[in-house]
Amino acid sequence: MTESWVNSAERVGADLHLELSGPGGRRAALIRALREAVRSGRLAPGTRLPPYRSLAADLGVARNTVADAYAELVAEGWLTARQGSGTRVAERAEPLRRAARTPVRVPPPHERGPRHDLRQGAPDASAFPRAAWAASYRRALRAAPSEAFGPGDPAGRRELREALMEYLARARGVRTEPERIVVCSGFAHALRLLFGQGAGGVLRGPLGVEAYGLDFHRELLAAAGVRTVPLPLDEHGARVAGLGRERAVLLTPAHQFPTGGPLHPERRTAVIDWARSRDAVVLEDDYDGEFRYDRRPVGALQGLDPERVIHIGSVSKSLSPALRLGWMVLPERYVDPVLAAKGEREAWASVPDQLALADFVVSGSYDRHVRRMRQRYRGRRDRLVAVLAARAPHIEVTGIAAGLHAVLRLPPGTERSAVKAAAWQGIALDGLAAFRHPRSPMTAGEGLVVGYAATAEHAYAAALDALCRALPPE
Amino acid sequence: MTESWVNSAERVGADLHLELSGPGGRRAALIRALREAVRSGRLAPGTRLPPYRSLAADLGVARNTVADAYAELVAEGWLTARQGSGTRVAERAEPLRRAARTPVRVPPPHERGPRHDLRQGAPDASAFPRAAWAASYRRALRAAPSEAFGPGDPAGRRELREALMEYLARARGVRTEPERIVVCSGFAHALRLLFGQGAGGVLRGPLGVEAYGLDFHRELLAAAGVRTVPLPLDEHGARVAGLGRERAVLLTPAHQFPTGGPLHPERRTAVIDWARSRDAVVLEDDYDGEFRYDRRPVGALQGLDPERVIHIGSVSKSLSPALRLGWMVLPERYVDPVLAAKGEREAWASVPDQLALADFVVSGSYDRHVRRMRQRYRGRRDRLVAVLAARAPHIEVTGIAAGLHAVLRLPPGTERSAVKAAAWQGIALDGLAAFRHPRSPMTAGEGLVVGYAATAEHAYAAALDALCRALPPE
Repeated sequence: MTESWVNSAERVGADLHLELSGPGGRRAALIRALREAVRSGRLAPGTRLPPYRSLAADLGVARNTVADAYAELVAEGWLTARQGSGTRVAERAEPLRRAARTPVRVPPPHERGPRHDLRQGAPDASAFPRAAWAASYRRALRAAPSEAFGPGDPAGRRELREALMEYLARARGVRTEPERIVVCSGFAHALRLLFGQGAGGVLRGPLGVEAYGLDFHRELLAAAGVRTVPLPLDEHGARVAGLGRERAVLLTPAHQFPTGGPLHPERRTAVIDWARSRDAVVLEDDYDGEFRYDRRPVGALQGLDPERVIHIGSVSKSLSPALRLGWMVLPERYVDPVLAAKGEREAWASVPDQLALADFVVSGSYDRHVRRMRQRYRGRRDRLVAVLAARAPHIEVTGIAAGLHAVLRLPPGTERSAVKAAAWQGIALDGLAAFRHPRSPMTAGEGLVVGYAATAEHAYAAALDALCRALPPE
Repeated sequence: MTESWVNSAERVGADLHLELSGPGGRRAALIRALREAVRSGRLAPGTRLPPYRSLAADLGVARNTVADAYAELVAEGWLTARQGSGTRVAERAEPLRRAARTPVRVPPPHERGPRHDLRQGAPDASAFPRAAWAASYRRALRAAPSEAFGPGDPAGRRELREALMEYLARARGVRTEPERIVVCSGFAHALRLLFGQGAGGVLRGPLGVEAYGLDFHRELLAAAGVRTVPLPLDEHGARVAGLGRERAVLLTPAHQFPTGGPLHPERRTAVIDWARSRDAVVLEDDYDGEFRYDRRPVGALQGLDPERVIHIGSVSKSLSPALRLGWMVLPERYVDPVLAAKGEREAWASVPDQLALADFVVSGSYDRHVRRMRQRYRGRRDRLVAVLAARAPHIEVTGIAAGLHAVLRLPPGTERSAVKAAAWQGIALDGLAAFRHPRSPMTAGEGLVVGYAATAEHAYAAALDALCRALPPE
């Protein structure tokens, strides 16, 4: 480390402490030191720098080193060099204005975010199969051809589309071929690709939606200028007979979100009939189709008519939302428009992750993981039902045949206070009202939507205990 | 494997061959077999199925197994069951209409895609550091907290933002803090987030752009409704003095794309002055800032005023476009709007990949890789220059101080035929005209933009040889 006090006021206008340390040799160190001095304001704008020779002598470095450093900083705009006036600090180099944020306040315990996460939507993050996934990733990386690390195909890797075709046929009754599968980053990305304005829009509204659903999807559609028309729900799912001049309908046929039942067989065929007669299309959000506990999963609606259904799935519930991998299974006529909306090259989904998922599916790790999680979530559901039967037998639990959440039915006028009471108990969850379409023609009653997957295994008992304390008395 | 010929025409209307094989027991096998029979059309719509008892006897399975299978297929909509009419094949189940594509024609050799890829934009895919990246991925996956596998923070992982802050300060002179970095999927994603309509748009046009640049970016901006105003280029880069009422300007200060020079120091300060006086912002596309061959890299413009420059980078050139990882370094006032545009949760960038990149940077693997590639690309550039000096000394080569491409200057009126001649030689590349803004007030002359990175090492000599054959004679 070389130190120097450039302290002639005539030369630089202020004492200047330059420390030549760190990697990369003297020249790099001098550049860093000067830049830092300008940044911090120790070398004020307009200040004239010492001639090469003086600073070189001062620092014990070669004259060329100083000349190079000055030239570099001139090139970067920190210094200016003008004939006759020497090298000066540029007028514009400004110190970084530190984020003027309010200082962090440590909140008191009751404000410190939820202790129990019973929100719907996320799987158990602590159960991510790290070892098996890392093994798939390593294998996939080793086996990949070189071109896999170049610009990607917007359809997604062929390896993954082939693995998905086989898996979706086997596990979900989806009928397709790799050419009709397009990889994406998840369900929201699929909606964006279908209704986005980038390529003129693959689909247009009005779009029929279930009267209860994710507000996040509704907002996304609204932002894309798509008008949504809420379809009432009953015990058989969405009343698809109400569909008329809509161009498309978005459904959760395997497990209505959030109320929880499958779409009735007659409605499954009815909605396909409607789509055929109107030249419309059904969007199938198969968000948790793998998780059905008391009998085998309801097959995908897509299997009834691959030309009338866009089947959309992802690993967000089955594996992890952190991977950002999903897929669209498309009718022939939408393949090219969706690819056009995606662009010339893959701009979204990580190719190594795509290859890892292909290996994960083909090697059977995906099935093993889904089986293991199905067992675990079934156990959680059973514990939820048992605890409620024992401690709050007046509360009906519905929507429990499948998925990662249940609905606790509440007496009229109690939902809002139950959500508040839950917050007081340190529980994060939503009431049914949070999912209701603002123009819904019906109400699904009052209730709490309890996600039983996101909590880690060891924390589940305490979460259920807190939940019981938040429920209205009989 | 159990086989059965259900051959009573009175019962099913056709011979039906059911094969009960595969995983999951008799019931699952029967469901698969029946579904397949309906799919393939062997069981036509409306066909009545045999009573449970008959089929059970036929197949040698329990009656309940058949009843369950029928019920399942009714639930899925394949079959219908009506009082008094038994179980029938549903009317709507249609066989998959195979993609009616023209049969694949094997193209003759000269049509089989380019033999030599000299397009700009992609690094050498064959040089992806598989082993080092896999090691980082494994370490990152092992060290990650559980919450990393839950819904992600739209800002990106803190581990990555800290690593980037340190790296960008050291390698690019960027001044920032982790709170101002937002992870994204690459430069195009950054543009979409800044100019997208989803959240009302963080920035608005008109946007100054360089008169030559990527048409892909121009199209993306046009689709987002942003008006672009082309700035003429000269030997000092973009003539930023022409900026007036634009709200923002998009520049490639380290290495003008595609003509190849750095922005002159006076223009660097001038554009910052403009942004300050107009309350405008500079978008810095730092697409290949790491690759400068004859002196150290030009520091980022962002360092001059972190409150006036949005610095955007990615690993697409330095590591691989397959990873879909980039970053935006933002002035304080844009952080919240950009996060709002991204949404409540990370919807794009793979979290395991983010963690792997953080490890890759912190462990020094990124620096090692960039150094290694800098050496390799410098070697390629030198070979290009040497080969041209020997075989086409009348062709001037410019823009060679940095980056992954050079510009071969051509005599007026020869560019189009040179691009065609290159195609005849099996070379994919673009002429300068491909990058010209349609309303450009100037021309940068004629020339070929030669990317020397994408070709694999072993194929480079042949590519150069072909290139020389495509050049116009003296």
